[in-house]
Amino acid sequence: MAIRLSNQDADFETRFSELLAGKREVSEDVDHIVRDILDDVRVRGDAAVLEYTARFDRLDVTDMAELKVSEARVDEAMKQVPQATLDALILARDRIQSHHARQMPKDDRYTDPIGVELGSRWTAVESVGLYVPGGLASYPSSVLMNAVPAKVAGVERIAMVVPSPDGQLNPQVLAAARIAGVSEIYCIGGAQAVAALAYGTDTIAPVSKVVGPGNAFVAAAKRRVFGTVGIDMIAGPSEVLVVADADNDPDWLAADLLAQAEHDAVAQSILITDSADLATAVEEAVERQLKILPKAEIAGASWRDFGAVIVVDDLEQAFPLVNRIAAEHLELAVADPEAMLDKVRNAGAVFLGRYTPEAIGDYVGGSNHVLPTARSARFSSGLSVLDFVKRTSILKCNAENLRQIGPAAIALGEAEGLAGHARSVAIRLNL
Amino acid sequence: MAIRLSNQDADFETRFSELLAGKREVSEDVDHIVRDILDDVRVRGDAAVLEYTARFDRLDVTDMAELKVSEARVDEAMKQVPQATLDALILARDRIQSHHARQMPKDDRYTDPIGVELGSRWTAVESVGLYVPGGLASYPSSVLMNAVPAKVAGVERIAMVVPSPDGQLNPQVLAAARIAGVSEIYCIGGAQAVAALAYGTDTIAPVSKVVGPGNAFVAAAKRRVFGTVGIDMIAGPSEVLVVADADNDPDWLAADLLAQAEHDAVAQSILITDSADLATAVEEAVERQLKILPKAEIAGASWRDFGAVIVVDDLEQAFPLVNRIAAEHLELAVADPEAMLDKVRNAGAVFLGRYTPEAIGDYVGGSNHVLPTARSARFSSGLSVLDFVKRTSILKCNAENLRQIGPAAIALGEAEGLAGHARSVAIRLNL
Repeated sequence: MAIRLSNQDADFETRFSELLAGKREVSEDVDHIVRDILDDVRVRGDAAVLEYTARFDRLDVTDMAELKVSEARVDEAMKQVPQATLDALILARDRIQSHHARQMPKDDRYTDPIGVELGSRWTAVESVGLYVPGGLASYPSSVLMNAVPAKVAGVERIAMVVPSPDGQLNPQVLAAARIAGVSEIYCIGGAQAVAALAYGTDTIAPVSKVVGPGNAFVAAAKRRVFGTVGIDMIAGPSEVLVVADADNDPDWLAADLLAQAEHDAVAQSILITDSADLATAVEEAVERQLKILPKAEIAGASWRDFGAVIVVDDLEQAFPLVNRIAAEHLELAVADPEAMLDKVRNAGAVFLGRYTPEAIGDYVGGSNHVLPTARSARFSSGLSVLDFVKRTSILKCNAENLRQIGPAAIALGEAEGLAGHARSVAIRLNL
Repeated sequence: MAIRLSNQDADFETRFSELLAGKREVSEDVDHIVRDILDDVRVRGDAAVLEYTARFDRLDVTDMAELKVSEARVDEAMKQVPQATLDALILARDRIQSHHARQMPKDDRYTDPIGVELGSRWTAVESVGLYVPGGLASYPSSVLMNAVPAKVAGVERIAMVVPSPDGQLNPQVLAAARIAGVSEIYCIGGAQAVAALAYGTDTIAPVSKVVGPGNAFVAAAKRRVFGTVGIDMIAGPSEVLVVADADNDPDWLAADLLAQAEHDAVAQSILITDSADLATAVEEAVERQLKILPKAEIAGASWRDFGAVIVVDDLEQAFPLVNRIAAEHLELAVADPEAMLDKVRNAGAVFLGRYTPEAIGDYVGGSNHVLPTARSARFSSGLSVLDFVKRTSILKCNAENLRQIGPAAIALGEAEGLAGHARSVAIRLNL
């Protein structure tokens, strides 16, 4: 049973602050292990990758070529996956593509009033490494959500890594890679895979950026290679915040809260409503649905340990709370969601109205499901085409306008004690 | 004397690769010290900040109020700074503002062919902390380059921290803060200042993002608070790459190379030209100018240890090298810089033609001088308005279009073993 708060309670602010401050992740200290693996792969390349793969994934392989997934194996995977799943993946791919195409930033080039030319020019990152977890969290939808924006951006090469412990490889993930247009796939994982992507080996050419979710080893490796390559965000456990008026079917809302909770025992589902009756009805519906949910153990633990139901007098009062929570996913299950949207400042994605369950956004809505967690929507955004392009500034002066703005640059160079800066301008103006 | 390479040399590729791989920064291992400072400030707040400030900045202060810079002190600073410098700062501020205003991303809201509504909505980060180094590297231009884009984005609160060792505070920095519209200023620095901004204290309200350059302690602190707050890039030593044809004044190019070199003994200046004669003339001009440059010791060390002159047969051959170097600053001092610009894939900022010395971009060009260093222009961009806004995805289905795309979401939820996801869609479709 989740906690229940009411903004009428005397201790509401204290308890709400505790809810916000609550840590849901136990950080594993794997940094020193990861450092050694990275150093080893940087020095010994393929040989080190093979050894770690033998040790951690129990694969008896002596040649990296065996770890590269052949086109034939992907063909085979396409046959193994049911047509309905392939069709759903293709629908998802197409919708993600259409939505992300609108995110492509435009170059800007202009001349200012005194004749200085300025501009911003966007180019795609040349190569991207995509980490896909093995085992339970090996999701084909995640392959699409990471690879399709990169393709839309114009990334030429997408190298995917996915561990195959004991040789097990999810054919859905290979099918999704094919559908998304991934260029190469290697059956490696963990810190050694991140190292191979960042530093390169004889077999795997280095990439410029590494994206995708992973366990504590992968996250620590990404933090460490950051700088050598770019990385995406380090995602925490998933979360949903549902804001609901009284006029909702409690079963629908309970299903949404549990869809989030089933991800992970440290996922978090929160309901804010102005109806204490609805709150109670949803709590009861959650308990009923937990009886039939296959992942009831995980979802039940998440709901019990991190779930929360917050009753407010008036939904107007929900918005300061919504913006402090800064949820990854925010559902507005209310009569006029548009009016409420204007009050939302911090959220990864907003799902408007009663017919937009968050799971639509996970799969086929078209928007990205890689979103800022752990209140980071206060300062960051979901994955987008912008993560796969970079901007170059352009500046062009001529002799005349350099004469107009140059003296100010000389003044600032001198004020900052950088005479060489001042001189590089002055010398062109015969000053 | 910088190294000289020619692409005619048999060992060119090896030596060029070595140049690329060269480490210019000695990473100081201050991480455990920084961890303790962060933990201490998180727990003890103002009291800890006061103690570290007393210890590291030798300030005998017992009340945080004394570390808050008053409006009167800023008024005083405005009087101390020469009018020519103030005028130059105001010109720079206005030009930075105009350029960055064009970077503001536009909201997007649309309905797709089946009636699903989608969108992207941009909002400003609410509060930003701006770190400004004390001592030598305390540059007013850096205050403008960090604060103005935040103001343009709509950030409501900009809290600046700047250490004042022994009570010394650069009035130019205070003047720049006033001119840029900084909201509050505290005379604190180091990891304790980053902690105060990220976690908040009784005196300093926490911010959502911390930006600005700093020493190894500040960089380590920023890495550690990342997640609790957003951070900008961790900048490395500065660098310039000048591509020049034969038709250049060697003194101008030498001045540009030295303007970069004077920043730091680990800065890097590289010249690529198709004229061996120009190369020699520039090398000689550098030596001549070093005799009169105030910061000759720093600039000379940088040029000797990290400078490079690369002669190519033909400037066409420069571009694969330019894109591998991925310089922070790239000058195209050639007859037709526009034609060359099309071949540039990786660069932080490009300065076109003979009349655009890089120093113009440092101060008054209007583009940002916070740019990706150490080859990170392969995957990242300079500071911009985008660093101070975040995007929320919007999705809205109705009963009809949920019926169209919902079954694909159900199929994928089931394929991924997430029955709760499937159920949250199915329950709305009576499936």
